[in-house]
Amino acid sequence: MHTIDFEPVGLRGECPEGESLLGCARRLDVDLVSLCGGMGACRQCRVQVVAGPVSGRTASEEAVFSGRERNHRLACQAYPLGDVKVHVPPESLTAPQRTQVEGLELDVRPDPPVRGCEVTLSPPSLAAPDSDDLNLRAALERGHGVEVDAIDYAVLREISPRLRQWDWRASAAVRAGEVVALGAPSTRWLGLAVDIGTTKIACYLVDLQTGRTLCSRGLMNPQIAGGEDVIARIYTAGKDPENADRLQGMLVEALNRTVGELSAEAGAERTDIAEAVVVGNTAIHHLFLRLPVGQLGQSPYVPALRCALDVKARDLGMELAPGAWVHLLPNIAGFCGADHVAMILATRLAEREGTSLALDIGTNTEICLNVRGRMTSVSCASGPAFEGAHIRYGMRAAPGAIEHVCLDGDRLEIQTIGNEPPIGICGSGLLDVAAQLRIHGVLDSGGRMLAHPRVREREGVREFVICERGGREPITVSQQDVRELQLAKAAIRLGIRALCEAEGLDERAVGEVVVAGAFGTFIDIDSAVAIGMLPPLPRERYRQVGNAAGTGARLALVSLERRREAERIALACRYIELAGIPGFHHRFAAACAMDRG
Amino acid sequence: MHTIDFEPVGLRGECPEGESLLGCARRLDVDLVSLCGGMGACRQCRVQVVAGPVSGRTASEEAVFSGRERNHRLACQAYPLGDVKVHVPPESLTAPQRTQVEGLELDVRPDPPVRGCEVTLSPPSLAAPDSDDLNLRAALERGHGVEVDAIDYAVLREISPRLRQWDWRASAAVRAGEVVALGAPSTRWLGLAVDIGTTKIACYLVDLQTGRTLCSRGLMNPQIAGGEDVIARIYTAGKDPENADRLQGMLVEALNRTVGELSAEAGAERTDIAEAVVVGNTAIHHLFLRLPVGQLGQSPYVPALRCALDVKARDLGMELAPGAWVHLLPNIAGFCGADHVAMILATRLAEREGTSLALDIGTNTEICLNVRGRMTSVSCASGPAFEGAHIRYGMRAAPGAIEHVCLDGDRLEIQTIGNEPPIGICGSGLLDVAAQLRIHGVLDSGGRMLAHPRVREREGVREFVICERGGREPITVSQQDVRELQLAKAAIRLGIRALCEAEGLDERAVGEVVVAGAFGTFIDIDSAVAIGMLPPLPRERYRQVGNAAGTGARLALVSLERRREAERIALACRYIELAGIPGFHHRFAAACAMDRG
Repeated sequence: MHTIDFEPVGLRGECPEGESLLGCARRLDVDLVSLCGGMGACRQCRVQVVAGPVSGRTASEEAVFSGRERNHRLACQAYPLGDVKVHVPPESLTAPQRTQVEGLELDVRPDPPVRGCEVTLSPPSLAAPDSDDLNLRAALERGHGVEVDAIDYAVLREISPRLRQWDWRASAAVRAGEVVALGAPSTRWLGLAVDIGTTKIACYLVDLQTGRTLCSRGLMNPQIAGGEDVIARIYTAGKDPENADRLQGMLVEALNRTVGELSAEAGAERTDIAEAVVVGNTAIHHLFLRLPVGQLGQSPYVPALRCALDVKARDLGMELAPGAWVHLLPNIAGFCGADHVAMILATRLAEREGTSLALDIGTNTEICLNVRGRMTSVSCASGPAFEGAHIRYGMRAAPGAIEHVCLDGDRLEIQTIGNEPPIGICGSGLLDVAAQLRIHGVLDSGGRMLAHPRVREREGVREFVICERGGREPITVSQQDVRELQLAKAAIRLGIRALCEAEGLDERAVGEVVVAGAFGTFIDIDSAVAIGMLPPLPRERYRQVGNAAGTGARLALVSLERRREAERIALACRYIELAGIPGFHHRFAAACAMDRG
Repeated sequence: MHTIDFEPVGLRGECPEGESLLGCARRLDVDLVSLCGGMGACRQCRVQVVAGPVSGRTASEEAVFSGRERNHRLACQAYPLGDVKVHVPPESLTAPQRTQVEGLELDVRPDPPVRGCEVTLSPPSLAAPDSDDLNLRAALERGHGVEVDAIDYAVLREISPRLRQWDWRASAAVRAGEVVALGAPSTRWLGLAVDIGTTKIACYLVDLQTGRTLCSRGLMNPQIAGGEDVIARIYTAGKDPENADRLQGMLVEALNRTVGELSAEAGAERTDIAEAVVVGNTAIHHLFLRLPVGQLGQSPYVPALRCALDVKARDLGMELAPGAWVHLLPNIAGFCGADHVAMILATRLAEREGTSLALDIGTNTEICLNVRGRMTSVSCASGPAFEGAHIRYGMRAAPGAIEHVCLDGDRLEIQTIGNEPPIGICGSGLLDVAAQLRIHGVLDSGGRMLAHPRVREREGVREFVICERGGREPITVSQQDVRELQLAKAAIRLGIRALCEAEGLDERAVGEVVVAGAFGTFIDIDSAVAIGMLPPLPRERYRQVGNAAGTGARLALVSLERRREAERIALACRYIELAGIPGFHHRFAAACAMDRG
């Protein structure tokens, strides 16, 4: 009997002799993806053995992993020979355990903008009737060498009863010479990092002193009510100031609700949150701040604001510590925003030598090419197909969604999220279907659906049957669904090509591709390459990193040095307008081809 | 025929040969005070001849003015011999022309916190798609050498449509590296100075660039609904947070209304006001900011805030330029506030050599003694008697109020404000009555009313008949009214004595007494000395300066140097607690004596 530790999901348990890591994971409810039933064929159940002895690599594993990937294994092929510690990358988990909040671990020495200072004041007397503000200033200077320039107005509004209630002891949160919050003695000051996507939002609650993420939560962006993509929302907001107010209000309301949940989970008060960092694409950033967006929707598509911004939480209606600041990372261009800067920050793309590419795939996909420190970015309107929108049986990555498929003759293996009965198909599933159909000749190079035992026609449109569902209509992928996917993938591929050409590079010269974003983390890279969404580079050049924008927001939350680096990135990064490249329409059509290469 | 100019009221007109300045003033509706009908006896119609030939001084004038007061005249005794320019000091005017807003002229080189910068931006293009914020920053740097650290959030919320509406030209209001407002090209940026008294408020609209006061307005403090004096309001606010909210709300509402009126008068918009300075006593300052006041009402009576404060107008609900700051001058102690600092600033008391005393007489009276640069202050609860409260026929200084009287045997000459039929008696009138009664032996040293043809008894209380009013009850001053006045004047005199003693000085060593405040400006100094409210110093040592706190607020509004000086004053000024001096009760009783000396 061996003890197996699955990290970072934090599940551990016994493993009898002769059970594979996959079998053990299944028993312990670690939801590893597996399509082939443990045959070493689907290559989905990838893990890394961090410590402990396991059986040797099989031939099918040797075919999957490079020599450098020494400790990488397929869970179905690896048998523990003693106690083992296993790292499960997010892309090997089904959705319930891999939300949009997962991302790179923070690798930074905390250097937070807000410092917590425990103070003990001298109670005033008739002989020394010190005012409460000067009393607090003196205690901060005496105890911490902190010279206070200002005490936030909201702090002043509570200072007198609080100091007396706490018997002249308190914890002061000081930011650049300003007291932004006053708490009971020993308050643990928290920070909030938020990545607002067009469709989804990730929120993280962080201990400002240690830099540790205490808890996190994903939620839907309620602004979807104002349009699925940013263009629709810019139009909605521009039509009537009340719409813009409402869009901002519903977003802030959702964030305030989530802040309440996260605080409760961390055993804290929302007023312990003394700083926040928010990132999002430029339109989302502007809609969140209630900045003008009309000019974003018209040539030359300029932001109202590119610089980083500090704004009091109360000015936005955010319910944190009343004197807390919200820091917005800088934007690069009208369609290349603070979330892109955060992604570059988190992946440390700017610091890489050689040629690296980083993509954050979402409703809008931003791509950055770094050639020896020179960065250029592009933005592609990839649309909401990856989120399941405009796809007949499309759905978000939730339990019951088909997330991976594998076609073998007439037989189609499917993997649903949480191993639930299938109810629809999510983005990564759609990508797999298209790739499998293309590989097996069911789709031609132009994306046209050809004859196949599972292809049928309904209302004049061909569709491929994914699975029957008893008496109900089967789940299918139609010719129209494939067309939607083609538009999305063409936008991304054209963006990559445009960047490489701007640098006079061949795509094949790219040494590393970092794929970020919730969706990007869960896709099968081989599928994406098979339909020509990503360039045909060796598999080991790809790295899937989860929500890097959220990680970047957390880095800027706990480190002033990383915050300054974000400003350097935003200033240094060039931006090219995809629609402005020569022969755009012709080249876009060419990029729709469902081919490698 | 000569042309006569009356300044600063700004009335001018013809004067026939043989008409006195008083006669001319009457015809031109310059409401000079005169009790004696032009006999040179009441000495109320004092003016200064600034330019032009007039008849020589009469014997009665020589008795009134010292040799140094060369151009001082009684208007009834001076006859123009050519075109003449006359300065009318506020104390010589009846109330409609002398409101609580009058004060010292600003004598300062403008060095305002907010600088207006005209900018011309480059319209963005696809080739140079500059964001609006960077575009504005570049224009400020290019055109004015101004490096912007921040653009206020409220400015950003309007930046894009505004710049386009104004065809890429604008006027930016910049304050310490922050763009606080953006206006149409050639905007004249304004400042607002406010002196909030316990009873009355003075508001001034100032051109920030020239330092010129454009217009001003006096209004009542609506917080009177929460109590007549600050102790009552502290109690009201402390009882229930909603009360405190309401007290702040009604004050802000009144100020917003007045700001609208002043802006209209100046032909400007309220959003042209890019900075404000507010002063008030500590309790009023706290109630305006909605700071805690409970601790102000309990020993050791400490302020929540002593330091100067910059707070965004929007945080207070003040409707100015949306990014404007409101600057609050520092406080000295729980009962010695920013208005006292402003008064010291305006009178330049801190810079005087020798020994000077400055009083701001009001519902609360603050007094500062400066001995060769060392300042000590005290606060006296003089109460609202001077405002007409708790006085049977008391009223505020409004048309029809008896403001000066002169007793001659049984005959009593009265002067009403605006020469209207008498309807009541205001503070300066009450002071005159008490002084005349004491001088003529109708009051004894203890303030007891003795027999006199005009003294009668009503409901067991003696009263002195001031004037009959046809069929209605006559206007009187009762024994109780005298008692109220005694309490008020005793508090002030005891304050003066306590300060002198703290410095080991005799009162007679005081070289100059500056009497500030609306009420202090209009009183007859001789009357105040006659009943022992002010020490018996030579008349020329007294100087009445009008609303010096309002002037100090205006100085701090247009000059950063004066603002820094205010901080130095607040830090340097010592404060003594009047109730804490040895033998307080006994000494207070002694100070009630109605005697010179």
